[in-house]
Amino acid sequence: MKPRAYLDYNATTPLRDAARAAMVAAMDVAGNPSSVHAEGRAAKALVEKARAQVATAFGADGADVIFVSSATEAAALAMAGRSLAASEVEHDAVFSHAGAVLATDGQGRITVDDPAASAVQLANSETGVIQDLLQGLAVCDATQGFGKIPVAFNWIGCQMALISAHKLGGPKGIGALVVKRGTDIAAQLTGGGQEMGRRAGTENVIGIAGFGAAAEDAMRDLDAGVWDRVRALRDAFEARVMDEADDLVIAGKDAKRLPNTSNLISAGWKGETQVMQMDLHGFAVSAGSACSSGKVRESRVLKAMGFDGPQAAGALRVSLGPETSEDEIMRFADVWLAQRKKHRARAA
Amino acid sequence: MKPRAYLDYNATTPLRDAARAAMVAAMDVAGNPSSVHAEGRAAKALVEKARAQVATAFGADGADVIFVSSATEAAALAMAGRSLAASEVEHDAVFSHAGAVLATDGQGRITVDDPAASAVQLANSETGVIQDLLQGLAVCDATQGFGKIPVAFNWIGCQMALISAHKLGGPKGIGALVVKRGTDIAAQLTGGGQEMGRRAGTENVIGIAGFGAAAEDAMRDLDAGVWDRVRALRDAFEARVMDEADDLVIAGKDAKRLPNTSNLISAGWKGETQVMQMDLHGFAVSAGSACSSGKVRESRVLKAMGFDGPQAAGALRVSLGPETSEDEIMRFADVWLAQRKKHRARAA
Repeated sequence: MKPRAYLDYNATTPLRDAARAAMVAAMDVAGNPSSVHAEGRAAKALVEKARAQVATAFGADGADVIFVSSATEAAALAMAGRSLAASEVEHDAVFSHAGAVLATDGQGRITVDDPAASAVQLANSETGVIQDLLQGLAVCDATQGFGKIPVAFNWIGCQMALISAHKLGGPKGIGALVVKRGTDIAAQLTGGGQEMGRRAGTENVIGIAGFGAAAEDAMRDLDAGVWDRVRALRDAFEARVMDEADDLVIAGKDAKRLPNTSNLISAGWKGETQVMQMDLHGFAVSAGSACSSGKVRESRVLKAMGFDGPQAAGALRVSLGPETSEDEIMRFADVWLAQRKKHRARAA
Repeated sequence: MKPRAYLDYNATTPLRDAARAAMVAAMDVAGNPSSVHAEGRAAKALVEKARAQVATAFGADGADVIFVSSATEAAALAMAGRSLAASEVEHDAVFSHAGAVLATDGQGRITVDDPAASAVQLANSETGVIQDLLQGLAVCDATQGFGKIPVAFNWIGCQMALISAHKLGGPKGIGALVVKRGTDIAAQLTGGGQEMGRRAGTENVIGIAGFGAAAEDAMRDLDAGVWDRVRALRDAFEARVMDEADDLVIAGKDAKRLPNTSNLISAGWKGETQVMQMDLHGFAVSAGSACSSGKVRESRVLKAMGFDGPQAAGALRVSLGPETSEDEIMRFADVWLAQRKKHRARAA
């Protein structure tokens, strides 16, 4: 069997050892965090420890961290009924709540008129393009940036931000809405008084413990320069494929981007075909956002950046992580370039 | 240090070994279930295995199991905007969405006029009282019954049911809404197309794997008669305390009840005081539902059953589980009776 290389870190990440250890330890804590007895207090302590870890890692000391089941739930809690303006490059979970549509340029950069009435992402999941965030934003979707680049909630100066554990080495199924203290939030899930009355439902204690440990560990990695190494690998990969495929376009290449993401556009070679071919060769990559139950459509993000239909349908997202090796990404470049040459020969 | 005895299984349960093993195994599966590559398909397979396990355990073959983050979220998905009738003995997560209020008798039994417009629980978390469910209910909250008594969705004949992993030895933070196939459900979380378009957000794969394994294991326990042993312990416990405390009232004692629950009413002796005293003596018990962030109020459930304020404030819930030993529950009886006697002497 061929060794597999996972190059789809923007879809989700392998669980960090620190997160695994915290989750396994949390499995021994039987109580309900809402119970007042010793077993309940022990569970509550795990939740509050993780809340502090996440707040510190996200530069959100003094802000409220409300644990929810996903960044999708955080987006609903932050945006439902508010008709905030948002760009078409936002994730569906945000864009589905948007009112007015903000303009996007060819490099994926969003023009914001009224920050206090807008939701703007920190970084794009498909292209890695990073936004220059104006102070005073209503909502910032920090899901893809948090853990990969330096970011602090208190420095962004937004009212609320969305984050997710599984994008930075934590478990899937846990995220948070971070809000400036004093901001009114009406609970969407009602019943018990958990999360200071803003999100009912017994807490995902094991997942929360994993989120806290992963966030802390991700910050250690960031401080240690792990993503500088990833950036060097990604840049070497891009130089390699651009060198051999001279008609290749890399989306957002002239913008500030995440250190790990390449979006390779080969008009006429369908992204979903590329994903399947690469999968057969042992590489996990993506044709866009993973969140659409395997359905592959033309990317709304790329269309908003001005790419035409065949281009937007011919995108392949390669996203590296701390565990990615030079061998993996260069093997991928070789195989992908060879397949691309074959496709070109057939199409010619 | 005194050995602790956990007698609060209705609040939450220790994690079953089978659930722990399934969760630890799931930690090695890195993919996103929505990704089409091998890593994604492996994660998807875990989710679908668990979905089948839960469906089988809940007697819901042919129905749809929609994984959500809690029974609270399932209640919102099932009930929001429908103004279903419900009784005051329902959990806050259900009652907070209710329209008309259904009547409750002194034993906690609910009178249902129009099943298709009503939400009725299978069993009550505070008293353990089991309802005779009419066919054709709109919603059944099966959270407290599933895993402790035989129950099958296809036999209840309701349109939707709510269940939760952490009440039967699975992890906290994962539940399901079970719906008759063909029932329209509008997603409340929008974005990705997960859960057949009815619940967006990357799936809690580790938690879902734990839910599936726990549900399967809980059914094995039920079939093996584990809860018959629990019932015998509970009955022996009640006989013991009734024998010594002749003015004691046990809520719902004349109704069908869960095999593990005793709700002891001592008017004038505050439940929260009892919980703290028992905690100091090494016993985890509860004054009511755990879901209210430690706030202890007069129980709405007991008030609906006709108990007065001092009675409703003087309730202690003892809820046993498969791991409860005769020694634990009888030690609890001794300590509790001794404290009760002291309280009476002081109050006299």
